[in-house]
Amino acid sequence: MDLAARLEEIVGTANVLTGDAIGDDYAHDETLTATPTTPAHVVRPGSADEVAAVLTAAAEAGVPVTARGSGSGLSGSAVPREDGILVSFERMNEILEIDTVNHVAVVQPGVTLTELEAATAEVGMVYPVYPGELSASLGGNVNTNAGGMRAVKYGVTRHHVLGLEAVLPTGETIRTGGKFVKASTGYDLTQLIVGSEGTLALVTEAILKLQPRMTEQATVLAPFPDLASVATAVPKVVGSGIGALILEYIDALTMGAITYTADLQLGVPDEVKEKSQAYLVVMLENNSAQRLAEDVEAVGELLSELGALDVYSLPGGAARKLIEAREKAFFTAKGAGADDIIDTVLPRAALPEFFAKVLEIAQGSQTLVVGCGHAGDGNVHLAVFQKDAEVRHRVLHDLFSAGMALGGAISGEHGIGREKKQHFLDLEDPAKIELMKRIKQAFDPRGILNPGVLFDA
Amino acid sequence: MDLAARLEEIVGTANVLTGDAIGDDYAHDETLTATPTTPAHVVRPGSADEVAAVLTAAAEAGVPVTARGSGSGLSGSAVPREDGILVSFERMNEILEIDTVNHVAVVQPGVTLTELEAATAEVGMVYPVYPGELSASLGGNVNTNAGGMRAVKYGVTRHHVLGLEAVLPTGETIRTGGKFVKASTGYDLTQLIVGSEGTLALVTEAILKLQPRMTEQATVLAPFPDLASVATAVPKVVGSGIGALILEYIDALTMGAITYTADLQLGVPDEVKEKSQAYLVVMLENNSAQRLAEDVEAVGELLSELGALDVYSLPGGAARKLIEAREKAFFTAKGAGADDIIDTVLPRAALPEFFAKVLEIAQGSQTLVVGCGHAGDGNVHLAVFQKDAEVRHRVLHDLFSAGMALGGAISGEHGIGREKKQHFLDLEDPAKIELMKRIKQAFDPRGILNPGVLFDA
Ligand SMILES: Cc1cc2nc3c(=O)[nH]c(=O)nc-3n(C[C@H](O)[C@H](O)[C@H](O)COP(=O)(O)OP(=O)(O)OC[C@H]3O[C@@H](n4cnc5c(N)ncnc54)[C@H](O)[C@@H]3O)c2cc1C
Ligand SMILES: Cc1cc2nc3c(=O)[nH]c(=O)nc-3n(C[C@H](O)[C@H](O)[C@H](O)COP(=O)(O)OP(=O)(O)OC[C@H]3O[C@@H](n4cnc5c(N)ncnc54)[C@H](O)[C@@H]3O)c2cc1C
Repeated sequence: MDLAARLEEIVGTANVLTGDAIGDDYAHDETLTATPTTPAHVVRPGSADEVAAVLTAAAEAGVPVTARGSGSGLSGSAVPREDGILVSFERMNEILEIDTVNHVAVVQPGVTLTELEAATAEVGMVYPVYPGELSASLGGNVNTNAGGMRAVKYGVTRHHVLGLEAVLPTGETIRTGGKFVKASTGYDLTQLIVGSEGTLALVTEAILKLQPRMTEQATVLAPFPDLASVATAVPKVVGSGIGALILEYIDALTMGAITYTADLQLGVPDEVKEKSQAYLVVMLENNSAQRLAEDVEAVGELLSELGALDVYSLPGGAARKLIEAREKAFFTAKGAGADDIIDTVLPRAALPEFFAKVLEIAQGSQTLVVGCGHAGDGNVHLAVFQKDAEVRHRVLHDLFSAGMALGGAISGEHGIGREKKQHFLDLEDPAKIELMKRIKQAFDPRGILNPGVLFDA
Repeated sequence: MDLAARLEEIVGTANVLTGDAIGDDYAHDETLTATPTTPAHVVRPGSADEVAAVLTAAAEAGVPVTARGSGSGLSGSAVPREDGILVSFERMNEILEIDTVNHVAVVQPGVTLTELEAATAEVGMVYPVYPGELSASLGGNVNTNAGGMRAVKYGVTRHHVLGLEAVLPTGETIRTGGKFVKASTGYDLTQLIVGSEGTLALVTEAILKLQPRMTEQATVLAPFPDLASVATAVPKVVGSGIGALILEYIDALTMGAITYTADLQLGVPDEVKEKSQAYLVVMLENNSAQRLAEDVEAVGELLSELGALDVYSLPGGAARKLIEAREKAFFTAKGAGADDIIDTVLPRAALPEFFAKVLEIAQGSQTLVVGCGHAGDGNVHLAVFQKDAEVRHRVLHDLFSAGMALGGAISGEHGIGREKKQHFLDLEDPAKIELMKRIKQAFDPRGILNPGVLFDA
């Protein structure tokens, strides 16, 4: 039996696409630089058993397998191989349980953030990880260790994944972790699979930690004369113990672009705007309106002391729009012709030095580099405008290497995938790369899962 | 050159102990059941380079290596092999940095919790993981993924380890993670090493996340008519969003024993005591005395609604003593002749059912099983009084298997080590055991690190 026939037997004819039946969407994710690639087959399994059978068939045929959630990734790690199978989780999209006693959600990987948000809101709970693209799937989030703006308070995906059901490339299905926040019972397979970009196992179910949903939110916007003073203010806000939900910096160029695109007036007078090189957005939440008001007051005073040119309390509507515009900053940059996006993470205290380095690298290569970022986490999102691919490669190399020299890492949340792989292999300690390859081998002895992602195939 | 001479060359003569020079302390941890075993050599390295040289020498000689922090572990995983080297980290005990901008501490593995507590208090920060034994080392905490009472608010050791320096059994020294809370840059080696009980690598430095230290604390004690009603109350307290720092249950027998041992009066009248089968201890913290008082009031009301027989706000001194007595519950149980201690973790909603199972197993085997636990995390600490080793093995098997059937795991924080290994191998999914063994192999191809821990040697 040929592979297509075998796959059809497993998932049903309607759920295998081959050749021209494969839509363009399956050929790419949102990465600006990846080459769209149509796979040999798209398979849409409906259960973990089907996933296991697909992996067994692929292993026997020696055909590579790439998993796909919503394809909103920014590292090219959901881009399939021409000779491979793309396993799309679109049909495995059920919220299996919202457990309000253990405070967990149990979801299939194809569930989107939008769907989970709606289901948790109904019962007064929240899955507090809000990476910017709400059409993303939980399977994708788990496999990229997605972050987002609220990580400064709640942590990232990793901190909310309590357990997984996963199919190994050997065809075995395992369950890791459970509906509890801790265990010391052997190696933590859950945490190893989180962030592995589809190279270790296919996730067929996830147990996610929920939080009680707070009722009140408020947003403060503070323009600063320069990036350095924003960067200096950030650790002080974190250290104050106020527990900000969001602590985001946006440079003046990016702020101009995203507010223009969203047609958004924030009420900052022109004479303040002219002096502002960077903005800090602080969002707070509470269950008590009174406590929230007190905290807003306290944060405002703190920001003024820390050198803010002024402090604005944004009305709910404007705040929501600003956050949305910030989430869409990627598309704004793309629309403006950005050639690549990076999301280096570094110790937050190193931000001022890093920004100085970025300016130096940008000027030295005649490249425009602008951005915003999760300042509370030291995670900087930069749009790089440089048409010449060779120069751009050098610029990225220099940016990553500057970040690493300051104690950082190449990616805070988007991942390495195919597109940042060369930099990862060039800059990371070879002993760690070799160790990771041996771990990959422990999961995937035949190397069928997402070859070419993280390591060369 | 023989091994002893080579080790002396590496760490200096004064830092190698052989034969009778090896004190009894090095032969055991605090596990009740482990057989004390004197190693062939005790080595006390002073740097990562020395650790690497020791591992290289051991690998060449094919001699097993066990790491030791403070030896307060409860799984037998720091008990050395007779033919092996015990690497004691007592000399690597420097706090290298308390970084108040990035909010991290950088410590050598031999630093104790007591030392870190003092150093962070000085600058208004806190390392908020408080496993009960403050003489424990951070290296030990990292390798057991230590928990403790405050996990319900802050999470466990795993959630606070941002990066490591670690020496691989191949002699290579790697650095993982960094002074940042997130990254998506390859597999998370930090999280894989956390909780690995000294079987994957020797940790020579850890970057730990700190929090701002809150100024105010208050403690509420609530007696309940039975364990089931405590267990039912716990998820409601968590779900209220009040953010308890501690949420601990103590059964009446254990409460009697620990308050008697500590000579502690809690002001619970006899007529209430008589009706109380279990107690809930709730500790809250805040920076504002007024908010704390409001929260205490709210928790008190909530507990009354949830069936508490009464609610007592404990004065600071009594509260501190109660928490200390609870931390020493292990020694109280040991003093009372307990034969083993387990720390099963399970979904908190499953606690009532689990308690019923425990009673059944205890009665069926004429075994006394009493305890307390981190109820907020579903982590139950039970002292098992049963002299007959075979019956006891069966009782533990039944308890673990009951916990796992309810979605739990064998150990929440103490680890598997040597002493719970047989149960782990008997009860855990063989596909996961095999995968873990392959991961072990990826780190330690010659199997020199702590053989006999987690897996058979
Ligand atoms: C406008 C915009 C804003 C964004 N903002 C953020 C942000 O703030 N923070 C952030 O972290 N990211 C952000 N992203 C990136 C993206 O949304 C995340 O990477 C997200 O996690 C991808 O999810 P997905 O379902 O689209 O995954 P995909 O792109 O389909 O896949 C991502 C990776 O996961 C693997 N994968 C998917 N499902 C499975 C599975 N079931 N089993 C195994 N592997 C699987 C794929 O193979 C691939 O390696 C943004 C993207 C856009 C376009
Ligand atoms: C009274 C009492 C109360 C306790 N309460 C709690 C509690 O509330 N929560 C909890 O989690 N535990 C508790 N424990 C257990 C114990 O304190 C923890 O397991 C602690 O983490 C052990 O630290 P240690 O330094 O004593 O480690 P050790 O016992 O010396 O070693 C523990 C493990 O770590 C490994 N190890 C040590 N250092 C290194 C290193 N540098 N590199 C690699 N591996 C290393 C050892 O090989 C061993 O596998 C308690 C123990 C007692 C006696």
